[in-house]
Amino acid sequence: MNKDSLKVSDIGEKALIERIIAKNSSCSTFNSINDYPTAIGDDSALTDVIIGENSYLVSSSDMLIQSTHFPEGMSYYQMGFKSVAVNISDLIAMGAEPIGFLLNIAVPNNMILDDFDELVCGVVGACDYYNMPLIGGDTNEGNEIIISGTAIGKVEKDKALMKYGFEVGDLVCVSGELGLAALGFELLSSRESYEIASKLNQSLTDLAVFKALKPSPDYENGRILADFKKDHNISATDITDGLASELYEILSADKKYNQFNNDDKYLKGIRIHEDKLHVEDEFKEISKALNLDYLDLFFHVGEDFELLFTIPKSLEETLKEKMEFYAIGEIIEENTVEIVLSNGETKEISPKGYEHLS
Amino acid sequence: MNKDSLKVSDIGEKALIERIIAKNSSCSTFNSINDYPTAIGDDSALTDVIIGENSYLVSSSDMLIQSTHFPEGMSYYQMGFKSVAVNISDLIAMGAEPIGFLLNIAVPNNMILDDFDELVCGVVGACDYYNMPLIGGDTNEGNEIIISGTAIGKVEKDKALMKYGFEVGDLVCVSGELGLAALGFELLSSRESYEIASKLNQSLTDLAVFKALKPSPDYENGRILADFKKDHNISATDITDGLASELYEILSADKKYNQFNNDDKYLKGIRIHEDKLHVEDEFKEISKALNLDYLDLFFHVGEDFELLFTIPKSLEETLKEKMEFYAIGEIIEENTVEIVLSNGETKEISPKGYEHLS
Repeated sequence: MNKDSLKVSDIGEKALIERIIAKNSSCSTFNSINDYPTAIGDDSALTDVIIGENSYLVSSSDMLIQSTHFPEGMSYYQMGFKSVAVNISDLIAMGAEPIGFLLNIAVPNNMILDDFDELVCGVVGACDYYNMPLIGGDTNEGNEIIISGTAIGKVEKDKALMKYGFEVGDLVCVSGELGLAALGFELLSSRESYEIASKLNQSLTDLAVFKALKPSPDYENGRILADFKKDHNISATDITDGLASELYEILSADKKYNQFNNDDKYLKGIRIHEDKLHVEDEFKEISKALNLDYLDLFFHVGEDFELLFTIPKSLEETLKEKMEFYAIGEIIEENTVEIVLSNGETKEISPKGYEHLS
Repeated sequence: MNKDSLKVSDIGEKALIERIIAKNSSCSTFNSINDYPTAIGDDSALTDVIIGENSYLVSSSDMLIQSTHFPEGMSYYQMGFKSVAVNISDLIAMGAEPIGFLLNIAVPNNMILDDFDELVCGVVGACDYYNMPLIGGDTNEGNEIIISGTAIGKVEKDKALMKYGFEVGDLVCVSGELGLAALGFELLSSRESYEIASKLNQSLTDLAVFKALKPSPDYENGRILADFKKDHNISATDITDGLASELYEILSADKKYNQFNNDDKYLKGIRIHEDKLHVEDEFKEISKALNLDYLDLFFHVGEDFELLFTIPKSLEETLKEKMEFYAIGEIIEENTVEIVLSNGETKEISPKGYEHLS
């Protein structure tokens, strides 16, 4: 048999797990077996970590399914990388430090072994990038590729970044440019769109596609905000289903939190300003050429894995010295989520975002 | 629209997550939100747990896929229950105490909402049974039901039950009867087999089917063994892929462990005795009537979720006072895995067990 055409079913589950362990030692700069008194290969992973009374254990689990989450054109390496990125993104949004990653993967029987290896290298590469050892998991047979990852971490109690806890007047900020991944998905799904965009601006086209294929949330941003959380009112979440959806989400979380404290006169909303969105003219130009509303890409698609966060206005200048971000709006004393357009008009932002099973 | 025919797609992902949170409060005796300073609904789960320098964090993640893991006749409640059982089984096999459970679930768009609710109640019911709060997770759309669970726990370092670490002369034990789940799978897959078995022995037939549909590993067994581990040489693993496969697995783990300590003169094996297997005559009778080798059911199918463990012979009587178990063989000074049959003959036990992707 040609070695290149070996399938996963030719070696079976146990040999696959051995391969993952081997890749983990060879691709990664840390070796789980040596650096951790753990037991890949035992019934569960053991991790030698101290979580004291001033910290929380942080855990997050996300499942990616080939037909839903992996666009056409995504490499196996990128699939593996993304499965870690979506999970670390949830730790970052809590201000947490990573402890370890568990990988649950199902692949079709006839998957080429080289492709499986590439996927595992993507997982291990991302674990390495985020300094989060792969500590355990499982392999299975599925009709398509399914990757369920679990990221475990810890955070000091007074640094945990919740979705709630902001005041009227606080700034609403994002940690980077939004809409690029959304544009990338569009370009990946239509050859024609890709060619139109390429002609207008090749570098922005490349960047958009790259953002869609290899999301890489910035670990440092979460830790910087967490450090300021100790002495300032800061809330944060990661933007996965689209900014609009997350804006409604933080209001809903804050409302629940405050009701819990017996305050039911909830009167907070969000006002965004189009002029502050920091969207490049080239992005608007490509959107227009593709008959897309650039604000729709910005607000309603998601997958940029940037942070949406709020800070007191007084913190703006100090924070600017530590990290890049854009203050795009503010918390207002009204029950609304709205945008003030460049032409002066104010419009409500629709809550729609990407939602599974709808 | 008839309420009974509501589908998950009629309410969407966010409403489904709300339903899971609500079920978690209503089905469960503890309310995650109140008992834990956690944040179902935030980016990650926060758990207020202390893991000191004398303990390990323990984590395990397993994925169940409808077409592979859920036999015909399994209810949605049982699917949910099993998804927790397979994960807690891995914690039990480490001697660990549970901290929390993360549920990642994908369901088809057209799944009936009542069935979804029943499945969630199975998950929550099992979390409750094992005193392990549901702390987080995610929902997705899939072609079939996929449940990926992660169980997180902790264990004192000197109590962790590894697969390795036994000596020649140690007893090889199992925590309960094996083969029943295997027989149950057979009976669920063939109406004819079911009727033959029913006529021979209805109560054993019912028990076998029940074992296949609702695996419920015994939490106490792991803790009892862990307590003895402090002062005795004890190894343990859970029997998921079949006893034969696990026997080879513990030898392989022990070999690796000892090589790691620069000892390559590895000379250990396992001898099982048919007379000590504790298999009821009725089980043998039904197997025979179905043209099945009862030893094959015992050794090569698995899913009983009992523990396979080793103890020093000197501990046998003391342990008998604490838990039920069967000493079925011993560690010998030979490179073999064999069974001494009732007729005096000795046969090698084949390593085959259930393995995905082969």
